[in-house]
Amino acid sequence: MARVICAGLGPGDPDLMSVRSDRAIRAARQVAYFRKAGRAGQARAIVAGMLRPDAVELPMEYPVTTELPFDSPAYNDALAAFYDGWADRLAALPGEVVVLCEGDPFFYGSFMHLYTRLRGRAEVQVIAGITGMAGCWHATGTPITWGDDVLCVLTGTLPESVLVERMQGADALVVMKTGRNLPKVRRALAAAGRLGDAWLVEKGTMPGERVVRLAEADCADCPYFAIVLVHGHGRRPEVPE
Amino acid sequence: MARVICAGLGPGDPDLMSVRSDRAIRAARQVAYFRKAGRAGQARAIVAGMLRPDAVELPMEYPVTTELPFDSPAYNDALAAFYDGWADRLAALPGEVVVLCEGDPFFYGSFMHLYTRLRGRAEVQVIAGITGMAGCWHATGTPITWGDDVLCVLTGTLPESVLVERMQGADALVVMKTGRNLPKVRRALAAAGRLGDAWLVEKGTMPGERVVRLAEADCADCPYFAIVLVHGHGRRPEVPE
Repeated sequence: MARVICAGLGPGDPDLMSVRSDRAIRAARQVAYFRKAGRAGQARAIVAGMLRPDAVELPMEYPVTTELPFDSPAYNDALAAFYDGWADRLAALPGEVVVLCEGDPFFYGSFMHLYTRLRGRAEVQVIAGITGMAGCWHATGTPITWGDDVLCVLTGTLPESVLVERMQGADALVVMKTGRNLPKVRRALAAAGRLGDAWLVEKGTMPGERVVRLAEADCADCPYFAIVLVHGHGRRPEVPE
Repeated sequence: MARVICAGLGPGDPDLMSVRSDRAIRAARQVAYFRKAGRAGQARAIVAGMLRPDAVELPMEYPVTTELPFDSPAYNDALAAFYDGWADRLAALPGEVVVLCEGDPFFYGSFMHLYTRLRGRAEVQVIAGITGMAGCWHATGTPITWGDDVLCVLTGTLPESVLVERMQGADALVVMKTGRNLPKVRRALAAAGRLGDAWLVEKGTMPGERVVRLAEADCADCPYFAIVLVHGHGRRPEVPE
């Protein structure tokens, strides 16, 4: 049976990947990773300088990214065929393959679509990673949750009314998958009364890291993987001033 | 100015700490960590075998844990004095000290109370870690969030009615700080219609790890750091069956 190790890479700084992922990646003879067609790929960039010179690389290129609406049947079919095909290829590989996955593989990770398809066909080990959102809250230099704070993680792809309602019901907020959804996310935060406390973090822990107040950001020019954060301010032991 | 490095330890398995934390801990000449009085301490246990033989250890023993209600003025005062005192001691140390922190220091971590007190008095560096909740969802072998899933992180210390409402408004759920709150958490999940999908994870990624359906768990005997999880089942590309 094939052996597939999915190595969580963490938020981007290679020093923030786990000792176990670091070890697996440096020893790998076969390395697979997702990327947009024609791009070097973020996952591959994170492990630059770590791979064995003789490692065989298997770039898994998404057939579509933003050309089709993500909720269209055509998008679904293209992605399903893509994951089916790569599950077949990985299951047929001789020996062990390490699949790179940014952040934590079990937290909105693309690898999960291979994981469900490889069950019973390969021995799969998944190595946890620091999430991208954690890299972003560390980039702000401020803790995200205290005491009894409720943290809500949302995606910018949700309807605006859902965003507003969930934003009102939480103390700390994380919004993933912003990109072209950023103007909607900003309107929802304003409607929920949280825009003044919101931060936009691009490339958290990576070169080019940028932390700006969302109210002052240019929403027309936002990378897909930028994250919006609102910090919690929960119960903490302090001497009253 | 003193130099304080807070090393996130991750969920418990030493192999899951970051390369940067691993390096900082192995090089440390002074190491501080929180623990209950009279206990060896979970943070110290995670780094067993990693410290230099000549490392000076500074156990920071909580003055109270569960003897006083966490929302009482006496509890607040005791904790505030404890953090004030240790911030003073760390700021006065010669050279660098590494403070150990389970999970991610900025996610409900005790170190945050030292962090706010050390600002301007020490050069502080915080190293992110894999959260305890991530260790727990990996222990279940099932991804926590897919597609547009909303993830809500709650603490068992919240009022039951708040728990029910937040549980109804999310796809994936994490409940921290369960312990003696577990019967309340279970009632809230049942009221929200989510009990059948809930898992109780104790000691995720550590020796003695245990994953059980919450509906079948013994709520009278639950460690404080056990976590309750409900997985999301969001949008994913599949060929219709």
